[in-house]
Order: sequence, then C-alpha cells, then structure tokens
Amino acid sequence: MTANETVTKGLQATLVELVDLSLLGKQAHWNVTGMHFRSVHLELDEIVDFARLAGDRVAERLVTVGASADGRAETVSSTSELAPFPAGFVDSSETVRLVSEAMDTIAGRMRKRIARIGDADPVSQDILIGTLDELEKAAWMLRAQLAS
Amino acid sequence: MTANETVTKGLQATLVELVDLSLLGKQAHWNVTGMHFRSVHLELDEIVDFARLAGDRVAERLVTVGASADGRAETVSSTSELAPFPAGFVDSSETVRLVSEAMDTIAGRMRKRIARIGDADPVSQDILIGTLDELEKAAWMLRAQLAS
Amino acid sequence: MTANETVTKGLQATLVELVDLSLLGKQAHWNVTGMHFRSVHLELDEIVDFARLAGDRVAERLVTVGASADGRAETVSSTSELAPFPAGFVDSSETVRLVSEAMDTIAGRMRKRIARIGDADPVSQDILIGTLDELEKAAWMLRAQLAS
Amino acid sequence: MTANETVTKGLQATLVELVDLSLLGKQAHWNVTGMHFRSVHLELDEIVDFARLAGDRVAERLVTVGASADGRAETVSSTSELAPFPAGFVDSSETVRLVSEAMDTIAGRMRKRIARIGDADPVSQDILIGTLDELEKAAWMLRAQLAS
Amino acid sequence: MTANETVTKGLQATLVELVDLSLLGKQAHWNVTGMHFRSVHLELDEIVDFARLAGDRVAERLVTVGASADGRAETVSSTSELAPFPAGFVDSSETVRLVSEAMDTIAGRMRKRIARIGDADPVSQDILIGTLDELEKAAWMLRAQLAS
Amino acid sequence: MTANETVTKGLQATLVELVDLSLLGKQAHWNVTGMHFRSVHLELDEIVDFARLAGDRVAERLVTVGASADGRAETVSSTSELAPFPAGFVDSSETVRLVSEAMDTIAGRMRKRIARIGDADPVSQDILIGTLDELEKAAWMLRAQLAS
Amino acid sequence: MTANETVTKGLQATLVELVDLSLLGKQAHWNVTGMHFRSVHLELDEIVDFARLAGDRVAERLVTVGASADGRAETVSSTSELAPFPAGFVDSSETVRLVSEAMDTIAGRMRKRIARIGDADPVSQDILIGTLDELEKAAWMLRAQLAS
Amino acid sequence: MTANETVTKGLQATLVELVDLSLLGKQAHWNVTGMHFRSVHLELDEIVDFARLAGDRVAERLVTVGASADGRAETVSSTSELAPFPAGFVDSSETVRLVSEAMDTIAGRMRKRIARIGDADPVSQDILIGTLDELEKAAWMLRAQLAS
Amino acid sequence: MTANETVTKGLQATLVELVDLSLLGKQAHWNVTGMHFRSVHLELDEIVDFARLAGDRVAERLVTVGASADGRAETVSSTSELAPFPAGFVDSSETVRLVSEAMDTIAGRMRKRIARIGDADPVSQDILIGTLDELEKAAWMLRAQLAS
Amino acid sequence: MTANETVTKGLQATLVELVDLSLLGKQAHWNVTGMHFRSVHLELDEIVDFARLAGDRVAERLVTVGASADGRAETVSSTSELAPFPAGFVDSSETVRLVSEAMDTIAGRMRKRIARIGDADPVSQDILIGTLDELEKAAWMLRAQLAS
Amino acid sequence: MTANETVTKGLQATLVELVDLSLLGKQAHWNVTGMHFRSVHLELDEIVDFARLAGDRVAERLVTVGASADGRAETVSSTSELAPFPAGFVDSSETVRLVSEAMDTIAGRMRKRIARIGDADPVSQDILIGTLDELEKAAWMLRAQLAS
Amino acid sequence: MTANETVTKGLQATLVELVDLSLLGKQAHWNVTGMHFRSVHLELDEIVDFARLAGDRVAERLVTVGASADGRAETVSSTSELAPFPAGFVDSSETVRLVSEAMDTIAGRMRKRIARIGDADPVSQDILIGTLDELEKAAWMLRAQLAS
Repeated sequence: MTANETVTKGLQATLVELVDLSLLGKQAHWNVTGMHFRSVHLELDEIVDFARLAGDRVAERLVTVGASADGRAETVSSTSELAPFPAGFVDSSETVRLVSEAMDTIAGRMRKRIARIGDADPVSQDILIGTLDELEKAAWMLRAQLAS
Repeated sequence: MTANETVTKGLQATLVELVDLSLLGKQAHWNVTGMHFRSVHLELDEIVDFARLAGDRVAERLVTVGASADGRAETVSSTSELAPFPAGFVDSSETVRLVSEAMDTIAGRMRKRIARIGDADPVSQDILIGTLDELEKAAWMLRAQLAS
Repeated sequence: MTANETVTKGLQATLVELVDLSLLGKQAHWNVTGMHFRSVHLELDEIVDFARLAGDRVAERLVTVGASADGRAETVSSTSELAPFPAGFVDSSETVRLVSEAMDTIAGRMRKRIARIGDADPVSQDILIGTLDELEKAAWMLRAQLAS
Repeated sequence: MTANETVTKGLQATLVELVDLSLLGKQAHWNVTGMHFRSVHLELDEIVDFARLAGDRVAERLVTVGASADGRAETVSSTSELAPFPAGFVDSSETVRLVSEAMDTIAGRMRKRIARIGDADPVSQDILIGTLDELEKAAWMLRAQLAS
Repeated sequence: MTANETVTKGLQATLVELVDLSLLGKQAHWNVTGMHFRSVHLELDEIVDFARLAGDRVAERLVTVGASADGRAETVSSTSELAPFPAGFVDSSETVRLVSEAMDTIAGRMRKRIARIGDADPVSQDILIGTLDELEKAAWMLRAQLAS
Repeated sequence: MTANETVTKGLQATLVELVDLSLLGKQAHWNVTGMHFRSVHLELDEIVDFARLAGDRVAERLVTVGASADGRAETVSSTSELAPFPAGFVDSSETVRLVSEAMDTIAGRMRKRIARIGDADPVSQDILIGTLDELEKAAWMLRAQLAS
Repeated sequence: MTANETVTKGLQATLVELVDLSLLGKQAHWNVTGMHFRSVHLELDEIVDFARLAGDRVAERLVTVGASADGRAETVSSTSELAPFPAGFVDSSETVRLVSEAMDTIAGRMRKRIARIGDADPVSQDILIGTLDELEKAAWMLRAQLAS
Repeated sequence: MTANETVTKGLQATLVELVDLSLLGKQAHWNVTGMHFRSVHLELDEIVDFARLAGDRVAERLVTVGASADGRAETVSSTSELAPFPAGFVDSSETVRLVSEAMDTIAGRMRKRIARIGDADPVSQDILIGTLDELEKAAWMLRAQLAS
Repeated sequence: MTANETVTKGLQATLVELVDLSLLGKQAHWNVTGMHFRSVHLELDEIVDFARLAGDRVAERLVTVGASADGRAETVSSTSELAPFPAGFVDSSETVRLVSEAMDTIAGRMRKRIARIGDADPVSQDILIGTLDELEKAAWMLRAQLAS
Repeated sequence: MTANETVTKGLQATLVELVDLSLLGKQAHWNVTGMHFRSVHLELDEIVDFARLAGDRVAERLVTVGASADGRAETVSSTSELAPFPAGFVDSSETVRLVSEAMDTIAGRMRKRIARIGDADPVSQDILIGTLDELEKAAWMLRAQLAS
Repeated sequence: MTANETVTKGLQATLVELVDLSLLGKQAHWNVTGMHFRSVHLELDEIVDFARLAGDRVAERLVTVGASADGRAETVSSTSELAPFPAGFVDSSETVRLVSEAMDTIAGRMRKRIARIGDADPVSQDILIGTLDELEKAAWMLRAQLAS
Repeated sequence: MTANETVTKGLQATLVELVDLSLLGKQAHWNVTGMHFRSVHLELDEIVDFARLAGDRVAERLVTVGASADGRAETVSSTSELAPFPAGFVDSSETVRLVSEAMDTIAGRMRKRIARIGDADPVSQDILIGTLDELEKAAWMLRAQLAS
C-alpha cells in the first residue's frame, strides 16, 4: 500500500503535536500549584493518557500506510508549533489557560487536516475524527473552568 | 524543605534521560522491522512504560524536595546526552543494539549519581537505586538477544 | 468554537429523544408482564443503558461545541415527538411492539439529521452515526421477536 | 399481595422525585461552569447514579406490592414538586446551591412518608429509610461546599 | 446474650423454609422442560443463590443470639410446611406456578414473624425484613410471567 | 439418548449423598465451637461449595442422559445412608471426625460405582472420577487434623 | 511421538464436525427470528464458544501427536457429514430443532470413536470424553425446549 | 428498513472473507513450525479473534438492514476468493507470507466497497472503515516481519 | 437539618467506641503469640476493618445531621469506657478473651442506644442496627473459640 | 534476634506518629467544610490509608525484631508530639494547613531517626526510608495547594 | 485408605521428575541467551508454572492415598533420571533442544506408568493422564521451534 | 557490566538457599499433620511463594550483573547448608520448628552478606535488604506460634 502524501503529512504533523501535548501536559502536571492543585493535577494526567494513546494510534497508522513515523525529541522540539510552556512552578488558573490554548491550537489544525484528507484515505480520516472528538471534549472540560 | 543541589541536579538529569528514553523507545517501537519485529515491538512498549513511570516518580521527587521539574521537549532535546536515534525504519537487531546502548549510557551515569548523592537525601538515593534496578534488568533482557 | 446551528439543533433533538427513550424503556421494564417477562425485562435494561450513555455523549458534544444542553423533564415532555407510552401493566408482546416503534421513530429522524449535518461538523456526524449503529442493532433484536 | 394505598402513594411520589433528580442532576452535570467545574461535574454523576438506582429499587417495590409504577417524562414533568432548574449554563456555586435545595426538598418529604407508612409495610419503609440515608449523605457532601 | 424464644423460633422456622426453598429450587432447575426452559432454568439458580445466602445469614444470627441452628435434611423434611414438589420432569409454566406458590407461602409467614418479633431483637427483625424484601422481589419476577 | 440403568442409579445415589453432605456440612459450619472454630468453620464452607457444585454436575448429567434428578429434602432424608449428624453445638475435633466419616462413607461407595459403570457411559464415569478426586482430597485435609 | 492412525482419524473427523458446528451455530445465531429470538440467540453463542474451544483443543492434540490438523473451509465443506443448514431467516423453534439434531449427530459419532480409540492414546480419549460431556450437556439444554 | 443492494452485497462479501480469514488463520495457527513458531502462533490467534468479532459485527449489520447473513461452510468454501491455504505443516516465514497476502487481498476489496457504498448507508460504511482500520494494522504487524 | 441531641450523643459515643476497638484490635493483632497466632492474627484484621468502616459510617451520619464528629486520640483515650488493653505480648487465648469482652461491652451499650433513639431519627437507628448486626456476628466468631 | 534499642525506639515513635496521623486525618476528613470540601475530603482518605498501612508495616517490624508494639489510644494520646487538632468543623484551607504541618513534623523527625539508625538494622532503615518517601510526597500534594 | 504400591511408586517418581523439570526450567529461563531470548525466556516460565502446579497435584494425591510425598532437593538430585542440564549461559536453540528432551523423557515414562496403574486407582490414573496432556502439549510447542 | 565477586558470590549463595527453602517448604506443606494442619499448610504455601519470587529476583540480578545463575537440583543439594528436612509425615508443631530454624539460618547469613557487599553494588544490596525484610517477617509469623 503506497500512501498518499497529504495523508502522511497530516498524520506526521498530528503525531508531533500529540507527543508535544503529552510532554507539555506532564510538565504542567508536575509544576502546578495553588488551591486547585489536586483537581488540575489529576485532570492533566488524563489528558496525557489521551495524548499518548492517540499519538500511538496515529504513528501506527503512519507505518501501516507505508511511511515511517517520527516522534523523537529533536523532531518534536523543532517542528511542533505549540507555544512554549514556561519553566518552573505555574499557578493552577494559568496552567489551565495555557494547556487549554495548546489544545485549541491542535484542534484548529486537525479540523483543517480532516477536510484536506477527504476521501484520500477514509481510515486515516476516521482516526483523526475520533482523535479530534476526544481532544475537543477534554478541552471543553478544561475551558469550562475558566468561565466565570 | 530546601533541597540539596547535588540531589536536584541528579534528579533533573535523570528525568531528562528517562523522558528521552521513553520517546526513543516509542520511536523504535513504531519503526522496527524484520523477522523479530513482534517480539521487539512488544518489549519496547514495556521499556517505555518503565521509563514513563520512573520519570514521573523522579519528577515528583524533584517538586517534593522543592525544585521544579523540567521535562519539556526543548529541554530534553537540548540537554539529553543520549546518542540520536536514526530516522526511518530500523531492522530489529540494529534496534536492539541502539536501545541497549542508550540504556547502558543512562545506567552508567546513574551509578555515579547514586554514589555522589550518598546520604544527602536517602529517599532520593533510594528512588534512584530502585530505578537503576529496573533499568539494568530491562537492559539485560535486551542485551541477552545480542549474545550469539 | 462557535457551533453551527444545524449541528446544535440536530444534537439537541437527539438528546431529547434519547432521554425520552431511557424513561420510556424503564417504564416498560418495570410494568411488563407475561410469559416473556424475564427476557424482555432484561433486554429493556440494556436499551436504557444504551440510551443513557448515548444521551450523555450527545449532550457533552453540545456543550463542547459551545451550546448548552437541555435534558430536563419539562423539555423532554414538551418537545419529544415519541408516541406516549401507556400507563399501567403492559403485556410482553405489546411492550416489544411499542418500544420497537419508538426506536424506529428515532432511527428514521437520525438518518435525516446525519445527511443534513454533512461536513458541517464531522465529529458530531460521527457521534450520530455511532449512535444510530447501536440504536438500529438494538431495534433489530427487539423487532426479531415480532416475526412469526 | 394487595398493596396498602399509603404505601403505594408514598412509593410513587418518591419515584417521581428520584427520576426528576436524575434528570436535573444530569442537566446540572452538563451545563456547570467555573473553576470548580471538574469536581462538581464528577460529584453530580455520583448523585445521578444514586437517583437512578434508588428510583429503580422504589419502582420495583411498587410492582412487587401489586401496583404499576409510573416514571414517564409526562408524569415526572407534571407531578414532581421540585423547583424548575434553569436552562443554559450555570456557575458551579449556583449549581451546588440548586441541586442541594432539590435534595433537601426530597429528603424533607421522605421523612414524613417514612413516619406515615409506619408498620403498614416494613419492607417499603426499610427501602425508604435506606434511600433517605444515601440521599442525606450526598446532600451533606454538596452542602458542605457552601459553608464558608 | 440469652436469646428471646420468639426470636429463635422465628429464625429457626425461617431457616427451615429457606433451606427447603433452596432444595426445591434446584429440583425445579434440573427438571424443568419446555420452550421457556432456558429462562426459567437460569432464574431458578438466582433464587437458589438467594435462598442459600439468606439461610446462612439467618442460621448465623441464631448462633449469634446463643441458640444452635438446625438445617439438617431430616429437620427440613419433617418440619417444613411447604407443599411437596412433584418428582420427575415438570413443564416450565407449571414450574413457575409451583415455585411461585412456595415463595408466597414463605413470604406470608415471614410477614407475621416480623410483626411478632417487634422490638424484642431489632437486629433479627432487620435481617428478616431484608430477607423478605429480596424474597418478594424474586417472587414478583416469577409471578409476572403468569399474568396473561 | 436412553440411559443405562446402572448409570442412572449410580448418579442418583451420588446426587443424594452430595446434597446430604452439603446440608450436613452447613449444619457443622454453623454449630461448631472450640479453639479451632475459625479454621474448621472456613474449611467446612469449602466442602459445602464442593458438594453443591459436584451435586449440580451429577444432577445435570442425569437429565442429560434422559432421567430426571431427585434432590428433594424428603428424598435426601429418606434415602441417604449417611449417619445422622447430631443436633446442637458440636466441638471442633468431634466436628472434624464426624464430617470426615461422612466423606469417607461417600468415597467408599463412589469407588464401587465407578468400577460398576465401567464403559457403560465413559462421560458419567469421568464425572464420578473427577468428583471422587476432589472429595478424597478434601477428606485428606480434614483427616490430617486428626493425626497426632 | 508417532501417532496411531485410529487416533488421528478420530481427532481429524471430530475437528471437522466442531468447526462445522461453530459455523452452523453462528449462522443460526444471526438469522433466528420469533418471540424466543433473544434466548436462542444468546444460547447459540455459548454453543459456538464451546465448539471453537473444543475444536482448538482437538486440533492441538492432532499436532501434538505428530499429525497436521485440517480445519479449512474447503475441508469442512467437503468432509463434514452434518445436514446442511437452510439459508435465510429461520424461526426459533425450527432453529432449536436443527441445531439440536446437528449436535446429536456429532455426539453419536463421538461415542463410537471414544470406544474405538480405547487405550491406544488415553490422553486423546480423555479429551474426547471431556468434549462429549460438554456437547451432550449443551444439547440437553437445547432439546429441553422442545419437550412440551 | 429496506436495505440498499449495494450495501447488502458489500456486507455479505465481507462476511464471507472474514469467516474464511478466521478459518485460514486457525489453520495456520495449528500447523506453523520453525524457530518463530511461538510468536507467529500467538499473533495468528489475535488475527482470528479480530476476524471473528468483525465478522459478527458485519453479519449483524446485514440482518439489521433486513437481509439474512450467510456464513455457512459451503458458502464460504464456494464464494470466498482468497487463495487456498496449503494442507500440512507450514514453516513460519511462509505462514507469515501467506496470511499476509490473504489480508492484503481482503483489504484491497474492502477499500473499493467503502467507496462504492458512499452515502447509501453511513452506518454500514462506518463499520467497514473500522474493520479496515484493524485489518490493515494487523496486516502491517505481519508484513513488518518480512522486511529484511 | 437540626439534629436531635439523643441521636448525636448516641452516634458520638458509638464513634468513640468503634475507633477504640479499631486501635485495640490492631494492638492485639500485632502482639498476639501462641499456637493459634495465625488464625487470631487474621481474624483481628477483619474486626479492625469492620470497626474502621462502621466508625466512618457513624461519623459521616453525625456531620450529615449537623453535628461535628470527634474521633481524635485524646477524645478516644479520655471518653472511651472500654477496659484498657495490656501492653506487651499477649497469648492467643487471652487475646480472644479480651477482645471478646470489649466487643460485648460495645454491643450492650449499642442495644440501649438503639432503643433510646426510637423514632427520633430512623436513619441513624438503622445505621446502628446494621452496625450491631456485624459487631455481634464478629463477636460470636471470637467467642465460639472460648467454648470448650 | 535481639533488637537494638535505637532501632526499637525509632520504630515505636514512628508508630505512634502514624497512628496519630491516621486519627487526625479522619477527624479532618469528617469535619472539613468550604468550597474545596470534596477534593480535600477525598485526599485526606488517601493520607489515612497511607498512615494505616505504614503504621502496620512499622509495628510488624517491631515485633519481628523482638519488641512488642504499642499503638493503643492511651499511648498515642500521651506520647504523640503532634500539635492537637481543633474540635468541630474546620474550613478547607485551614484543614490543609493543619494536616500539612502535622506531616512536616513527622517527616522532620523521621529524617533524624533514619540517620541515627544507620547500619544498626538496614531493614528497619529501609522501611523508614520508604515510609518517608510516601509521607513527603503526600505532604507536597497538600502543601502545593497553599502556594498562591 | 491404604494405597496400592504401584500407584504410590508411580506418583512419587512423577513428583520427582516434575520438581526436577521446574528447577531445570528455571535454570534455562535465567541463563538463556541469543536472538530468541525473550520468547524462550517467557515460554519457559509457563513450563515452570505447569511443572509446579502438576507436581503439587501429584504430591497431594500421594498423601491423599496415605503415602508421604518426597520432593526434597536431595531426593530430586539423587533419584531423578533426567539428563543433567549444563551450567552457565546456554544459547536459545540449545536451550529449546535440552528442555524438549527432558520433557520427552518424562512423557515417555508417564505413558508406561498410566498403563501400569490401570484400574488400581482410577483417580490417580486420571491425574496422570491430565498431566501428560499438558506436558505433551507444552513439549509440542517447544519442539515445533526445532523443525526447519 | 563486569560484576564484583563479593556481589556474585553473595547472590549465588542466597539463590541456593531460597531454592532450598522453596523445596523444603513444599515438602513440609504436603506432609504436615495434626490439629493445626490447615493453618500451617496454608502458611507454608505463602512462604514457598515468597521463596520462589525472591529466588527469581536474585537469579535475574546475577545474570544482569554478568554472571550465570545456578539453581539446579544438584547444586542446591550439594551446596545448601540448611539442615536436612526429615522424610515422611511431620507433626504441625515440629514442622513449624523446623521451617522456622531454616529461615533463621538463612536470615543470619543474609545479614552478614548485606554488610559485606556494602557499596560494591547498591542495587544488589537493596535486593537483599528487601528479601531479608520479607524473610524475617514470615519467620516471625511462624515463630510466634511457638511462644507459649
């Protein structure tokens, strides 16, 4: 099976973003502080679990369609377009805002990729739609905390 | 509790190496090929699980002793001293050799850190010893495949 | 994310029907009688479980796309278009016929909504397709009992 | 077994209130917002689970004593005496206050019914006491959040 | 603790009836025939499980209050007042009718014992009320099959 | 399938003995006393579980080969040849001795039946051999307590 | 280990029948209709599970004794002696009758094979006896539904 | 619901191929030999599990849309277009190659069917896409072993 | 809800006794010696588990009815009326006697409290009856070991 | 094995503090109030579970090295040096501050004991290091909530 | 029950061989090397588990029939007739060959014992047949790796 | 990694003792008799489980540090310094005394090895300390039964 380039580019870009989200989510999980610490700390671990499983699914689709997958630290660090997460301790409200923004960034890009892939590979499209579903739901649960 | 700098430096360096091992292990897990594919593919996932859990334990010890933890993609990419893992598909024997080398590199550094920390913080030392135990055992199971 | 009105109307109408199905299914579950009592009583609980989980999924998609969800008793009672279920005890064959009709009504409406949503929101469309799959399968298992 | 009317009226009224609580709890679960979102969102699901299980137990007692049970949307909407829950998004503190009030209303009525049933049917009385125990405990856990 | 004779007589009589129900239920479970075989066969095993657990609970209350318990075959055979169950194969409708009658007989006697024990031993009374609750619910589920 | 009479007589006699053992084992479980109470009380419940499961297996083989099974209290009480178990509380050593004797009685009879059935029905023979295996093992564990 | 031909022929013929039963059971499971649909549909899945596990056990005994196993569609279709199952939807009573007949056919042949194998290979004989035990029990549970 | 013929033909052809894959996979699982025996033997059982579950899902969609399903040995043997699998023992590399080819054949046909069904029945299309996703992933894991 | 003083006094006194029983049970669990060590050691842990769960239930009823709960070491030590447990190692028979006495003391007081609370709060009364049931059963199992 | 006094004193003092922490943690768990009630209430139960398990481990090490353990209410109340926890309801922030202080007090003392025991008993030292690890991690998770 | 000497000799010899197989299997499990390390290492642990469980079953049959069992290191070392396993690291192919030979040796002896015991003790014979079944199946799975 | 000889000698000697303890424990488990049979029989199985798991951990550390492990029957029989366990049935008190002595012998030697290894290999030292912890705890639970 020889893979369509639109498909493999879309999957590889999604992989990089999901690996970056898993690292950024753990960073936030460890360094969050403030009265909402426990709730945010636990929620971030669920987001990391999602990002890891979804990243794995996307990477294995890449190799299934014949392309290699690239989720190395260097690749993630140099090609991910997520805004950098600050070093050191971060207050829980700021943490929620920053992770929420990262997830919105990924969701926005994924919506475009899903449209672009169209019928080129319905399986890859279906994997991206399923990933977007979980990503947007988790993002809502973070964002809802910012509403006053 | 104000943390000893030898302790926090040792923990932070270990964290970076374990995050790098988890990414490198997944990279190898996705792109391995050859007749031993299935066995190596499954074994690498166990190594990734170890690296993630151990990394989490080390990072939470860092914040417990009062320092923030840094496991961001940029930090891992710029400070990890593991040799870069090649892009693209990699044959199973070569995969075993490369991951094995990365684990030996980490184990060698951890043995020195454990000696250096000494009694400065017996809890951190105990965490590193427990991590080294699992790391060396997993490395043996990889390495044993290279013996003819 | 600002939601498309076709999408939110379709989700809200589905939510009302699924909540109504869960209440109607429980009503049938409690009041069924006759020699097939046990089998129908158990099957209805599986239908109720489906309706509750699917309703939850649809409602959370609504809030994810930025609209509030409305599953209150008053809303269900005044906007659901399912035929009213009779009060009192109902024989097992009649129970099967009535619940089967309610499920067919919902399935017919969902097929139209799925076509209408089209590409406006592929995630919502995918959720409705998944829900329709389970609904139609459960409806077949009820309906098969009416064939002589 | 022919059922005592005090008993069946008490059970039917409790059934309606528990079904209404399960719908109202889900409504609140979906539409809550604010910094306490996650904690309240999760707690409401436990209250809904309680209301569903307790409602089922009460309804099956009704049919066991020979009366049919009525938990249809129309019946709940027209006979429940709980104050209507507002449409749209609701802040977490207000959500806690509203659900708490609904539970206190039900608890107050149940205490009177338990006294009224007395020895007419010790099994039904025992079911209502067990339900009240869980209801009051869940209400305390909500209410405790309102204390300053 | 020296036990009240009303209490121990009530518990011992209940024990005999529950052991008899467990044997009669198994007899029916093995020898039932007809198109409803599978459903009735499975339901009878749930009734036997209930009778065994409830019998154990009642017997252990007897020894807890200082009296010995008697659930031997001879005692059950000579003191149980349940109507004898026929030998040989029994059609499923007749099976449902016969087991249903046996359960109604026990339930009727237990209601009187619960009233008689009153406040003499609230723990024993509570055990009998809990047993009656389960017995009557299981009896309803059998009986509902006889309604046309 | 029309059953061989040697087979059905052997199965029916085993069924009666296993039902009697399950009742006798529970009787002993409830009324045992003395410093070894807890150990013997727990061990007897394992013997009762064995007797119930084995009895069920034997009874279902009876109906499988076309004969009805008879495990009613009256049948057990009138046809079992186990020595009667005493009423009232029984010391733990005496309890062990009595149940041990009952199990030895059954084992001795089963050994003869297994030889008698021979090749008439290898499935029934296999069921009886498997039952004897468990029975003799449980009997050893009781008997070992009597050795000084 | 060089296998006795009586043994390998007996095992291979049993394998073909069990694979055919698993396909025939699924065919019946999907296409059954009528008021007993749900009970028969569920029971057939248990029969299929039995046939698959038993077939696997028999096939692995074949290769263990040194012969290859043959369970391919062509082999099953051309060598199984079960009566063909009709295409299309089949009413639940007729379904029960047809599957029951297929199981009786297999059981009859297995009884002869067990006698024929005798002491040639006690392990293979034991596997066939265990398989026959489960087959005959499942057949009784189907057949019992045909008794009026 | 009256089913579209493109849909039912596509589902029926997929059913036949999945049943054939499940038989072919078991055949390979039993008769594989060589130093990779254990790994291939285990992997084939996972492929068989996939084929059985997917076949069941497809068959139940067929009856849900109103057509009967046909998965009988004769039908599979006469209509499946997979290349015949050789009799007797097969070396592990050859086994991997043959099963891999069979899976690629099915995947190629399914991709065309998915395009053909289009919007005729979005639920059936979604079932086929999900099946193709798992099939292609399992095929990659086999194929990866053939790369040198 | 404003709590009746008879109710809150009864609950608070029960809480203190249950916390004391949990500490006394652990003390006995650690320091028991003699040939019955293992059996008594294990049994005491079950008593401690009961005391902890029951204490938690009673304390949460206290706060549910509006009173605070007091289970602090100082309060337990100064208000519990259980006889002091000896320091150091204690032989198994003496251990059984001492813990048994403590449980009988608590049971006797609880019986009076249950009567005193009467209908003032049926939920609290029901909690105390359930606790007494478990306490008396556990006490019987200890006491039975003292019978000769 | 005759125990070193430094070891047994260190273990006994740790036991008293852990039992006191388990009681103080439950006291806080029951009486906490305020908008963070639910999160703190749940977190305190995890701390109590830790304190109970760690206390058990320490007490059993004491008897293993030949000394008796003392965890009685009187001993805890008179020898624990933790600051007394206030009676009555306590706001969630104040609760977090008070339990956090108690844990810091214990951790500080344990660090000194670990150094003091040195090589006198490496097993006891290892148990204390493992306990300190968990204690400090739990303390960080409480303390992080106080950071602004 | 006084045991037949043919039976006890056969069981004791089997016990020694199974204990030796469990030690030899662990020896091989630890010291295996080469590219098939992981697969063989895992498979050997399953063989050890089998040997331990089967050895336990055989030893408990010995004491059940009245003889003592002897599985001490000295007895195993001096009476087992398995060829000695080499010291030091062993390549995976050689490991498979050596363990395979040991299992074939045991299987050959067991087949003779099963014939010799005949009807002297059908339970012991059945235990040996069941053990031989598992042993031969595990031996096939090892041996299949040696086929080219 | 080239292993220190003090380390490998200490690990190998511990391995031999743990394998011998596992065989000796099973020997005792099978042949114990007397009124405490059941309790001692069960406790010995827990000791065997510990010895097997600990032996495995020690052997795998040996190969991890580069030495082969030797746990063969001959090696255990010729190099273990535990006193020989008597053949035949052994009374429960004598059994407890003998196994207790064996465990004390091992514990005494391990304490010296732990001191000797010192910092040569902190991981091996940690493994031995953890093993000693469990060994001494299990030994206390046996020994406590010998105290009068």
